[in-house]
Amino acid sequence: MNIGLDMMGGDFAPLEAVKGLQLYLSEHTHAAALFCIGDETLVKPLLEEHQVTSPNLHLIHAPEVIGYHEHPTKALKEKQHSSIAIGFHLLATGKIDAFISAGNTGAMLVGAMFSIKAIQGVLRPTIATIVPKLTGGTGLLVDVGLNADCKPEQMNQFAILGSLYAQHILNINNPKIGLMNVGEEEGKGNILTQATYPLLKENTQINFIGNIEGRNMFDDKADVIVCDGFTGNIILKLAESVYDLTQQRGINDDYFNRFHYENYGGTPVLGVAKPVIIGHGISKAKSFKLMINVAEKMIESDLCAKMTEQFKS
Amino acid sequence: MNIGLDMMGGDFAPLEAVKGLQLYLSEHTHAAALFCIGDETLVKPLLEEHQVTSPNLHLIHAPEVIGYHEHPTKALKEKQHSSIAIGFHLLATGKIDAFISAGNTGAMLVGAMFSIKAIQGVLRPTIATIVPKLTGGTGLLVDVGLNADCKPEQMNQFAILGSLYAQHILNINNPKIGLMNVGEEEGKGNILTQATYPLLKENTQINFIGNIEGRNMFDDKADVIVCDGFTGNIILKLAESVYDLTQQRGINDDYFNRFHYENYGGTPVLGVAKPVIIGHGISKAKSFKLMINVAEKMIESDLCAKMTEQFKS
Repeated sequence: MNIGLDMMGGDFAPLEAVKGLQLYLSEHTHAAALFCIGDETLVKPLLEEHQVTSPNLHLIHAPEVIGYHEHPTKALKEKQHSSIAIGFHLLATGKIDAFISAGNTGAMLVGAMFSIKAIQGVLRPTIATIVPKLTGGTGLLVDVGLNADCKPEQMNQFAILGSLYAQHILNINNPKIGLMNVGEEEGKGNILTQATYPLLKENTQINFIGNIEGRNMFDDKADVIVCDGFTGNIILKLAESVYDLTQQRGINDDYFNRFHYENYGGTPVLGVAKPVIIGHGISKAKSFKLMINVAEKMIESDLCAKMTEQFKS
Repeated sequence: MNIGLDMMGGDFAPLEAVKGLQLYLSEHTHAAALFCIGDETLVKPLLEEHQVTSPNLHLIHAPEVIGYHEHPTKALKEKQHSSIAIGFHLLATGKIDAFISAGNTGAMLVGAMFSIKAIQGVLRPTIATIVPKLTGGTGLLVDVGLNADCKPEQMNQFAILGSLYAQHILNINNPKIGLMNVGEEEGKGNILTQATYPLLKENTQINFIGNIEGRNMFDDKADVIVCDGFTGNIILKLAESVYDLTQQRGINDDYFNRFHYENYGGTPVLGVAKPVIIGHGISKAKSFKLMINVAEKMIESDLCAKMTEQFKS
């Protein structure tokens, strides 16, 4: 198993990426082969300084970096020696089995969609985030911002992709799929959710349990919550701010602490042919380690093949 | 000043409506004239039992009640002696200056729009909720569910209505108007917010400060947050559930306690010609009292006339 990690992505890179590797290696005796993609003049001394050594580590030199404010398509085209461009090249050519970066989100999405491409039959790939449930488990919210405007058929596909992710990565058996809406009854909603409901109801590939409301976000009603990317992005950022509110109020609570971005471990791009994971710009060691763990699970479970299978008509 | 209160609306009516009146009267020496609309065989004994007496109280007998699950238009037509139908009749004929009910929300909205009617020039009335800010103040979120699908021109009007409400009822000077969106920069968003942004930007009737994100919901960036009713309803219910989460985690915090529905004091219908306030179905004494306070402010400030003025072209 070969995992590619962009050492240059994120506000605290490459230091926190190095620390994330260290954390991962300290917890895994049978580690995956890790391809560390970044500027070796910066990365190598840090690895040495932190005594991060392992036969599983392979440094891939990438002299260029795509900055946060660069135009994704333009930057990927012009900076072919950037860590993100090299990462996607390695993934596309099969040298690595998954690619992780906390760098420019737009460049990661463009790379995922154009170097790796959508699974045949998938109208639009999507991004998801995990949701801490009050009952202790973890749910999934999909889409969280890739597709601001959606069609009902896309929402229906998000449900299938999310269901497979919940099943194989979050280990939820027969995940309950809920449609985020403004009321419980069928027929409620805006034009989009009204049109999406019957598609989900008729979809035999998922365990659709009906509409859920904002109040059900953190309860046990649904494991996978489907919404358009506009709604999902607002919910995601609102939920993140709840953690900030507890911090500012001096509240230290096990449940609310689970809202900390560090525990999310990145956002998988679902519906593309190979595992791609995008990290939060403020990722630190723990997030990098969690993203490696998610990549391992995605490879082990052969999630992308399972998704491809579901979209074969 | 004459305020009409539906004594039969809400899960705990008429008892909690009676207790709300008691609370209001205990705090106000110069009380408004209160028209208590409900079944006098139920309400009168309760008023006596709780010793709620005042020359300002006037009991209006309404032998019928519109239940929660009744069809709004049908119920209003068939139950002309219901508390809601009588309330709107009194409001339309000028016998009362504001009408409050925690009863059937649909019937309240239908009554507001068809007995009272929209202010001339207002495309669609809207409903708003207050938002507890971390800095201590109170913001406004509009729309929170009346209009699931919106047009940019409607969103622009919500901004004007919300701005006037924030100014005259929440006492916020030159309220900052923010557009709920998925990114800060102009051009971000779904089709609706992309088209709404330029309208808000060019609108000289409001102090538009740009896009805000889910993370800014409870901070000081905007006083009035404009969104479509689908998004707003999900945010509202999510915020309410945050209070429930703190309760379930045994957290007793002054700030999070402000998320309790009881402190909201009902949802004003904005853009109709007279003050109409809809209470939460689970309203208790404090909510009823707060709704009377809001009605007083709406009458005193002559808010509906100010709104009418703004929509004169």
